[in-house]
Amino acid sequence: MKTDILSMLRKSDGYVSGQQLCERFHVSRTAVWKVMEQLKEEGYRIEAVRSRGYRLSESPDILSVAEIESRISTRWAGRNVSSFRETDSTNVQARRLGEAGAPHGTLVAADAQSGGRGRRGRQWESPPGRDIYMSLLLRPQIPAAQAPMLTLVMALAVADALREQTGVDARIKWPNDIVARGRKLCGILTEMSADMDGVRYVVIGVGINVNGTGFPEEIQERATSLALESGRRFLRPALIAAVLEKFEARYDKFMKEGDLSGLRDDYNALLVNVGEQVRILEPGHEYNAISSGINGKGELLVTREDGRQEAVFAGEVSVRGIYGYV
Amino acid sequence: MKTDILSMLRKSDGYVSGQQLCERFHVSRTAVWKVMEQLKEEGYRIEAVRSRGYRLSESPDILSVAEIESRISTRWAGRNVSSFRETDSTNVQARRLGEAGAPHGTLVAADAQSGGRGRRGRQWESPPGRDIYMSLLLRPQIPAAQAPMLTLVMALAVADALREQTGVDARIKWPNDIVARGRKLCGILTEMSADMDGVRYVVIGVGINVNGTGFPEEIQERATSLALESGRRFLRPALIAAVLEKFEARYDKFMKEGDLSGLRDDYNALLVNVGEQVRILEPGHEYNAISSGINGKGELLVTREDGRQEAVFAGEVSVRGIYGYV
Repeated sequence: MKTDILSMLRKSDGYVSGQQLCERFHVSRTAVWKVMEQLKEEGYRIEAVRSRGYRLSESPDILSVAEIESRISTRWAGRNVSSFRETDSTNVQARRLGEAGAPHGTLVAADAQSGGRGRRGRQWESPPGRDIYMSLLLRPQIPAAQAPMLTLVMALAVADALREQTGVDARIKWPNDIVARGRKLCGILTEMSADMDGVRYVVIGVGINVNGTGFPEEIQERATSLALESGRRFLRPALIAAVLEKFEARYDKFMKEGDLSGLRDDYNALLVNVGEQVRILEPGHEYNAISSGINGKGELLVTREDGRQEAVFAGEVSVRGIYGYV
Repeated sequence: MKTDILSMLRKSDGYVSGQQLCERFHVSRTAVWKVMEQLKEEGYRIEAVRSRGYRLSESPDILSVAEIESRISTRWAGRNVSSFRETDSTNVQARRLGEAGAPHGTLVAADAQSGGRGRRGRQWESPPGRDIYMSLLLRPQIPAAQAPMLTLVMALAVADALREQTGVDARIKWPNDIVARGRKLCGILTEMSADMDGVRYVVIGVGINVNGTGFPEEIQERATSLALESGRRFLRPALIAAVLEKFEARYDKFMKEGDLSGLRDDYNALLVNVGEQVRILEPGHEYNAISSGINGKGELLVTREDGRQEAVFAGEVSVRGIYGYV
């Protein structure tokens, strides 16, 4: 009921009468009043005016299940939420839920992670009360070979959501980082479990630097946050909801087409690597090339200095910008 | 020490003197005698002749770690063994070990499984003391898309090992069943965990019908065992060791070439589907075709009735023989 009351308060422009809430949930006025008191204790500012009712004037930046769910208006993405005050890693939790049979679209969020990880096993700093650490569990019926493309679907969704919600010029660094002014704003870690018949489940972990205003010296040239880029603070639950909404629409398109061809133009429009010289780090050798964006499979198309064109696969190479920070 | 004593007894043509064993392991004659008594209790027949020493004349059909390890002479496959009297599923156990960081080549075996599973979630009957239920944990540095090919590497290894050890005409039904006279002798279930950078680990589960002599009526036309095919009983640990040896050599070849091109001819030579009419069951439609074996990627090459050639991918279709049992 708390989730639904929050949703009603949030959707309403003005006041929601106590009578309305009582009728909707078949409870007494006292029961409604108790929920309001609970919400206030959690940090919500709720104005109660006799004869008019209740109005939500401010929400706290907390990751409670009710707070997240009350903001989500998707069909399936994030319709089943687990939220932790602190956990080892939202990806590990989501994989556990995946093994245990949790449904497609299950969301795991955490206020802090004790063992956050990025790609190649790198540590992902995850202090409480500051950033977004979330993982989405998916059960697409696709061959294992197609699953890595979902990382690019999420990158596009995150870039879109952050641009719309914050005004920050968030862009994609192929394949799966979100950057602003060449500095990393968000990392994405996709893991899957599959067998011969295809994907059993995929977990897409998203870490977004939201309200931090300082980074350790060794990474401050390479990392940034939404707060640093905009000079404002943001409510994490609102950003999470926006990411899920953007993702759901783009995922459905991906599944319908079977690849990224329907999303490629949008992706390339936000890609920092387009038209840039990049350095391809293949196991064993490196070379320079000019990138021209992704193809429908999510591979980066590059033209080598000798004119040869290649499609570069994410699992096999690293790409480093030569100029600027990316 | 038990494993090593077993290995020494097994490798020796004649007797191994107590003195030799004492010196080798730096223990007393009493300690050696105690191990021999333990082995006898487990079902080993060991002859002790004064002035000559010990001789192993018979081994029991048990899946103890010492029994399995004493038979294995590979470099890495099965060098780290976990064996269960009964477990839910050796694949589940191997995945747990995979998550916990167990090394490449770890073997899980079980005398019985309470939740054995085949492809598409089908139950795999797993009573005690009769069949082989084993899973091998691998950590290949390959993209996720290549991992399904490992199933075919294992199918070839199992077919080879069974032919050599039992004389049964074991053949491969694409992609990953082993059959004799068209009846199923062995199933293989490959599962993997992967991220954008490639495979984290692969688990290949192998179930072999060894010493069973009767099947439920509803499957007796479709299933068989080594005992039914040959009229003899087999020691499961010896078969496990043979499978691991065959697998190791073929895996190393696969990793060196990066695909199945170096194993294709051997695989096709044992493939029942070659030159046969098969029915391709694609989601949505079915058609008949003549199969001509796999290509280097493990896809089945088929010629449709209208002459068109196609390469069929295991995750997308089922193949059913039209004539005979396969």
